[in-house]
Amino acid sequence: MDSALKIGIAGLGTVGAALAATLAERADYLAELCGRRIEVTAVSARDRNRRRGVDLSASEWFDDPVKLAREAEIDVFVELIGGDDDPAHAAVRTALARGCHVVTANKALLARHGVELARIAEENGVILNFEAAVAGGIPAVKVMRESLTGNRVRRVFGILNGTCNYILTTMEREGISFDECLAEAQRLGYAEADPTFDIGGHDTAHKLAILTSLAFGTEIAADDIYLEGIENISIEDIRAAADLGYRIKLLGVAQRTDTGIEQRVHPTMVPVSSEIAQVDGVTNAVAVEADVLGELMLSGPGAGGEATASAVMGDIADIAKSRPGAQRVPALGTPADRLAPYERARMRSHEGGYFIRLSVEDKAGVFASIAARMAENGISLESIVQRSRDHTVRARPQTVVLVTHATMEAAVRKAVAAITSEGYVLGTAQVIRIERPIVD
Amino acid sequence: MDSALKIGIAGLGTVGAALAATLAERADYLAELCGRRIEVTAVSARDRNRRRGVDLSASEWFDDPVKLAREAEIDVFVELIGGDDDPAHAAVRTALARGCHVVTANKALLARHGVELARIAEENGVILNFEAAVAGGIPAVKVMRESLTGNRVRRVFGILNGTCNYILTTMEREGISFDECLAEAQRLGYAEADPTFDIGGHDTAHKLAILTSLAFGTEIAADDIYLEGIENISIEDIRAAADLGYRIKLLGVAQRTDTGIEQRVHPTMVPVSSEIAQVDGVTNAVAVEADVLGELMLSGPGAGGEATASAVMGDIADIAKSRPGAQRVPALGTPADRLAPYERARMRSHEGGYFIRLSVEDKAGVFASIAARMAENGISLESIVQRSRDHTVRARPQTVVLVTHATMEAAVRKAVAAITSEGYVLGTAQVIRIERPIVD
Repeated sequence: MDSALKIGIAGLGTVGAALAATLAERADYLAELCGRRIEVTAVSARDRNRRRGVDLSASEWFDDPVKLAREAEIDVFVELIGGDDDPAHAAVRTALARGCHVVTANKALLARHGVELARIAEENGVILNFEAAVAGGIPAVKVMRESLTGNRVRRVFGILNGTCNYILTTMEREGISFDECLAEAQRLGYAEADPTFDIGGHDTAHKLAILTSLAFGTEIAADDIYLEGIENISIEDIRAAADLGYRIKLLGVAQRTDTGIEQRVHPTMVPVSSEIAQVDGVTNAVAVEADVLGELMLSGPGAGGEATASAVMGDIADIAKSRPGAQRVPALGTPADRLAPYERARMRSHEGGYFIRLSVEDKAGVFASIAARMAENGISLESIVQRSRDHTVRARPQTVVLVTHATMEAAVRKAVAAITSEGYVLGTAQVIRIERPIVD
Repeated sequence: MDSALKIGIAGLGTVGAALAATLAERADYLAELCGRRIEVTAVSARDRNRRRGVDLSASEWFDDPVKLAREAEIDVFVELIGGDDDPAHAAVRTALARGCHVVTANKALLARHGVELARIAEENGVILNFEAAVAGGIPAVKVMRESLTGNRVRRVFGILNGTCNYILTTMEREGISFDECLAEAQRLGYAEADPTFDIGGHDTAHKLAILTSLAFGTEIAADDIYLEGIENISIEDIRAAADLGYRIKLLGVAQRTDTGIEQRVHPTMVPVSSEIAQVDGVTNAVAVEADVLGELMLSGPGAGGEATASAVMGDIADIAKSRPGAQRVPALGTPADRLAPYERARMRSHEGGYFIRLSVEDKAGVFASIAARMAENGISLESIVQRSRDHTVRARPQTVVLVTHATMEAAVRKAVAAITSEGYVLGTAQVIRIERPIVD
């Protein structure tokens, strides 16, 4: 058997502690599968004295993760610190530059510095693995950068945030409001005290930026993402979607178009009979459409200490099975110096179906006016439904729900602006894009 | 750039031709991703003069695939001949023994000779890749043997045969009989003229045998599989299942139990709200439950020339990216000499829910008798429903549908035998096992 693979872990939160415990508990089993032992020889965290349920006394302790990355006697640096800045950034750069392999679960770091880090890894002939950074335990990174090699991807999309999916699933299942759901999610630990990062779609955007690069061989462009969160999704939207045979999911979507690559994160209506519509609760999913392979979907746990630790363990095992310095799998699938610049397709030219829900005054001519404004903008309708809660009472607000055939976003925006300017719309028009699992 | 990776392809049917065409068409792109060119330098097939839509004139032609494997100047031997016997078996052995990597899509060969071939590959320090052999384009093999490294698998199950899934989906969707569906599937090319191998579950069993070995680190035991095909599933079963909130799928299931590992292929009722119930038509799916990761599901194209060629291309790209002779990923996940003997758990001790549909004479006491026989065998019922098609006509056969709570297969068999011996059952009792996507 070869000499042991020495691991340094920086960051001993839920994931780091689960990883250290698992590596220790099944050390013999892993050695059998990998042909060499995997040993945690160095660790770093903020508080040395915190109880973590795992004995780390045999590992060298570092207060400073960058010092660990620079000085510890290790083959692999595992970064579980988090954040797109130092010390995570400095530690990963330092480890790669001195010829250590790196495994990280840090999506924010990769979304911002992924191309730079991939380049440093390739220049130094070491592996940069980050399976846990996208969709937690789902092996989306490996599948995209290894299994799909040679395919041209048309679209990749996914449910990439468990908090949002839990909230949307629970709103539908229990018929309760967004605010009630969020409070429950916070109580259960599925949502942070400040939930903005999740429900605003920022977390999904980080993961999507990485997937886009893997899918299309482009540089990571995390700031060039159209972003809409789920905070304005109401129980009325969910009910209207269900009536029409759809479910609402927060999707991250990247798609090749004639004018560039779309990257967008927004609430999306998907047909209730599609596989992705059945992805419930905190479960995540990644779907990809590739020209040779066809359509592939992966679903599983997108977060959680154990699932994330499993992905990190798989990344470490890949390194243990490979020859040192022999790495030819580029971190982002395409070698860093061959990545194409990202060309952004504008949302104005996005093409798809739209769901539009309007609350309008109950007066003659409103329905006809709405239909006329849509027609003037060249939008053909799949359905238009007018509803009032109580037919016995007149002069109450009426709800009008429109579903368009595939059309241009610019046209929808113009039509909605024209309708709004007529003065009979109460509140704001709700517009939700429809995503079909299969692009026609 | 390193020297080109030389490929020999034996077998130029749909998959082989699609593979050769794709490798030629995107040669530059693959070279960029893999760091070396991939060149088809030798080919073999039965008929040299058949038109295949791809120019193979630059490749050396061999009439005999074993001769190609033995003599051609190649780094990788791609076996697309099929069959568990010679020449496929001899050719793969020959190639591995002389130090060539092998990529194969041949499930029958692996189900029968997989352990032997894995051993030869490991002894010679070469790679044996077979992603296309299980569930076509779905990267189940890579995920099982690489991403899940270190996990203990509890259960793996899947929809592994597109023909069966197409038939079951179409029966439900169009309300037509098994025979009508099979005829349509044959017309569309989704089923063979002799469909026994598919609809009898044998093809699923081959794939399951490979998955079991990958999941549990055991020797392949393709003959130790409980097997039931879909030929006795009627439209009445599908309707009764739908009424109860289930869909019928042909699943291959391998599961660790107290008495060994169950391997079984049979029609299965899955909850209609589960992800796997939404896997329609010729699409395949593989689901796995692992102790650290949790539950993961992959779905995608299980067959077809292009999807299969994509999986083979991914296997070749993995080899192109690796150092020659540096392979430490064992073909079956666990090194061949460490594979545990397969210990079979008997179907009699299988535990789960059961759906039982009986056609009975319409006379007093039948319902009570059925309930009594179930109770005597310690079986508790989730539901029992008696139906007649036409309530105005008496003395017609009645249908009784029972759904049991989790119980032992032996008890169900005993109860059904007791009920049948009462004399009021018309025809044969239909018994279908229920599979829950999450094991409680």
